[in-house]
Amino acid sequence: MVRTTTFRIEPNVEPNPVNRPALSPIIVQLKKGAERRLLRGHDWIFSNEIKAGSLMPGTVPGRLCHVQSHQGKFLATAYYNPKSLIAARVVSHEQLNVLDLDWVSRRIQQAVSIREIAYKQPFYRAVFGESDGLPGLVIDRFGENWVVQITTAGMEQLQNLIREVLHESYHPQSIVWRADDRFRELEGLEVAAPQVEGECETVTEVREGTLAFETSLTSGQKTGWFFDQRDNRFRLAKYAKGRSVLDVFSYAGAWAVHGLAAGAASATCIDSSETALDLVKKNGLKNGFEIETIAGDGFDEMKKLLRAKRRFDIVIVDPPALIKRKKDHDAGLQAYYQVNRLATQLVSESGGLLVSCSCSQHLTEDELLETIRYASMTFNRSARVLEFGTQSLDHPIHPAMPETRYLKTLFTWLS
Amino acid sequence: MVRTTTFRIEPNVEPNPVNRPALSPIIVQLKKGAERRLLRGHDWIFSNEIKAGSLMPGTVPGRLCHVQSHQGKFLATAYYNPKSLIAARVVSHEQLNVLDLDWVSRRIQQAVSIREIAYKQPFYRAVFGESDGLPGLVIDRFGENWVVQITTAGMEQLQNLIREVLHESYHPQSIVWRADDRFRELEGLEVAAPQVEGECETVTEVREGTLAFETSLTSGQKTGWFFDQRDNRFRLAKYAKGRSVLDVFSYAGAWAVHGLAAGAASATCIDSSETALDLVKKNGLKNGFEIETIAGDGFDEMKKLLRAKRRFDIVIVDPPALIKRKKDHDAGLQAYYQVNRLATQLVSESGGLLVSCSCSQHLTEDELLETIRYASMTFNRSARVLEFGTQSLDHPIHPAMPETRYLKTLFTWLS
Repeated sequence: MVRTTTFRIEPNVEPNPVNRPALSPIIVQLKKGAERRLLRGHDWIFSNEIKAGSLMPGTVPGRLCHVQSHQGKFLATAYYNPKSLIAARVVSHEQLNVLDLDWVSRRIQQAVSIREIAYKQPFYRAVFGESDGLPGLVIDRFGENWVVQITTAGMEQLQNLIREVLHESYHPQSIVWRADDRFRELEGLEVAAPQVEGECETVTEVREGTLAFETSLTSGQKTGWFFDQRDNRFRLAKYAKGRSVLDVFSYAGAWAVHGLAAGAASATCIDSSETALDLVKKNGLKNGFEIETIAGDGFDEMKKLLRAKRRFDIVIVDPPALIKRKKDHDAGLQAYYQVNRLATQLVSESGGLLVSCSCSQHLTEDELLETIRYASMTFNRSARVLEFGTQSLDHPIHPAMPETRYLKTLFTWLS
Repeated sequence: MVRTTTFRIEPNVEPNPVNRPALSPIIVQLKKGAERRLLRGHDWIFSNEIKAGSLMPGTVPGRLCHVQSHQGKFLATAYYNPKSLIAARVVSHEQLNVLDLDWVSRRIQQAVSIREIAYKQPFYRAVFGESDGLPGLVIDRFGENWVVQITTAGMEQLQNLIREVLHESYHPQSIVWRADDRFRELEGLEVAAPQVEGECETVTEVREGTLAFETSLTSGQKTGWFFDQRDNRFRLAKYAKGRSVLDVFSYAGAWAVHGLAAGAASATCIDSSETALDLVKKNGLKNGFEIETIAGDGFDEMKKLLRAKRRFDIVIVDPPALIKRKKDHDAGLQAYYQVNRLATQLVSESGGLLVSCSCSQHLTEDELLETIRYASMTFNRSARVLEFGTQSLDHPIHPAMPETRYLKTLFTWLS
């Protein structure tokens, strides 16, 4: 069933134009008081925090810089991008003149070593940007296939070094370079189709415990798999036996398969993408299960299920970020209210579990909890939150950067 | 090794004086605007929210009441205590005239049924007060031994019904009635030694997965076991192999045993109580492990270990609540800073795990995170929070009552 197509590009045949010998660091001087966040450990400097006239014009995006206080005291080594609102991202609190192979290697190896401690299987987010001291870099590992996503000009400068580290330390069968994230535009970087180096099947296997899934590393959502919910999916097992499961915004059906493997009586997936629902079907069968699929908008399909008087023992709502930008907060918050009102009504009247998720950084956990409280009061259900999940541990949280904590997955029992 | 002593009291030989036939509900009328929190689902009414003169004098503590808005609209059924700052606690949003056996039975059975879904073994907190719609009641289950802790006059009125439900539904070998919590004084209730009904060994076994522990249901801390950290202790396993573990404020050594069972190279427990350390030794041997014990104050002993230049791969700090009352917040916060500064220094320089806990309701998760951020910056360590644990799921959280969420257990990797 697995169609095997081989992509192959020779590394460095067309070196990225920014992969040139490193230039010496420039000085970035902050305005008075602007060093406060930096001294607390936050690793971003916004363009309006930089002293006017302290920069040479025409600086290459991504160039290394030494950040100084307004009094000229060294604060951190960062990389600078005049095109970005986040003008500089700290890479070290030591004074470095170059980010060399040794530096990149130590950072990547340290990140991977923590995952190797915590996970028995080589399927995880190996590098999670700022949290691993590598701003602008995400690396996901699928066995011997590695997916690299670079979203900043500063990190793009290190592309050859990253390639070298992966080859020397991990001998990948393939590296998929994904440059299709729209965030790249904010850094003045090109948005392009994924490029595969080495051999990678169009359909790749991901394992979660005893379960196996199929996904695509070149055309799948994000880097191909939502590892951030993996640890939460394992929590589902204990509730699933004999129960009916509805997964709204299902993508490849991983929640449903986890439920069925733990003995769920049935599983239904809703997604607007037919490609995703094909994956749901395949992933069900791959693990020996049939999954009902419903193609359509999550909101609309939940309403239809309500009208058809269908109810489920377990309802999972894991929508895409409904608040993409801070300024969309209020409208997005209303969308979360609606999701949870609809989902609450779909949970069996005799008692059942609502698994409500938000991957929007701009929605706090308290706000999500409030939508659940509100929905349960509205429909006269008693609600008890049993588990507060967040992103899997391969997406560590930087204690000074709340921006690195984005996923909320609340398990609530509704009576 | 288990010394068996049998306590036995005949049920109802000396009925509690408040266990008299229920009186009809009184009316408690709220001041204007004071219903807002109640309408949001919060189940407490403070004495200063009640309309002056709306109550008959000399009301029996714990008497059932109907809560009304200032305009006389029915809001909730609660029980009332003129002696307590929390003057009334809601038991139902329906208008009830009596809390009878059927009502108590449904509440307890519903609470237990959720635990039975989630836990394979009969060791859990069966009832968690307000979160299970039973304010003032905590019931812990240790196999066929049930420990009941009543902390309000209203719940004390239901003692005979609770006894009847436990006997009829669960046929306990023993019920341990614990009335030794100092909170009872706030309700004008007697603080007394535990009473055992039926047969209960002085040393009782608790099981967590494949591990077995000894504790005392009559003389142990709280109700005998800290079930609230159970789910977090299971998280430790994946980090433990080959590592040295230090557990500060260890009580009966459950963290250490979990670590050793997962392959930890060694475990050291610090506690100020010799009784606790005896349990540590016994619990180690019971599972086939030797545990080093250090008797003394957690702060002092951490300082001594630092002076002796001892370091550990995993350091767990799980202190008693260092902020007991809201007004002690600032001093208590400083104590959390100190705990985490000391613990951070004790984590191996080559990288290791800090498991930092707070069971103080008055310390927010963000505040605990901030103590970790501060400590890591102070000692020039990079910190990544891998897991945000809270209380085990048998301590569910009431979405409208932040007071029911008290435990924070942060797993942070320090490089």
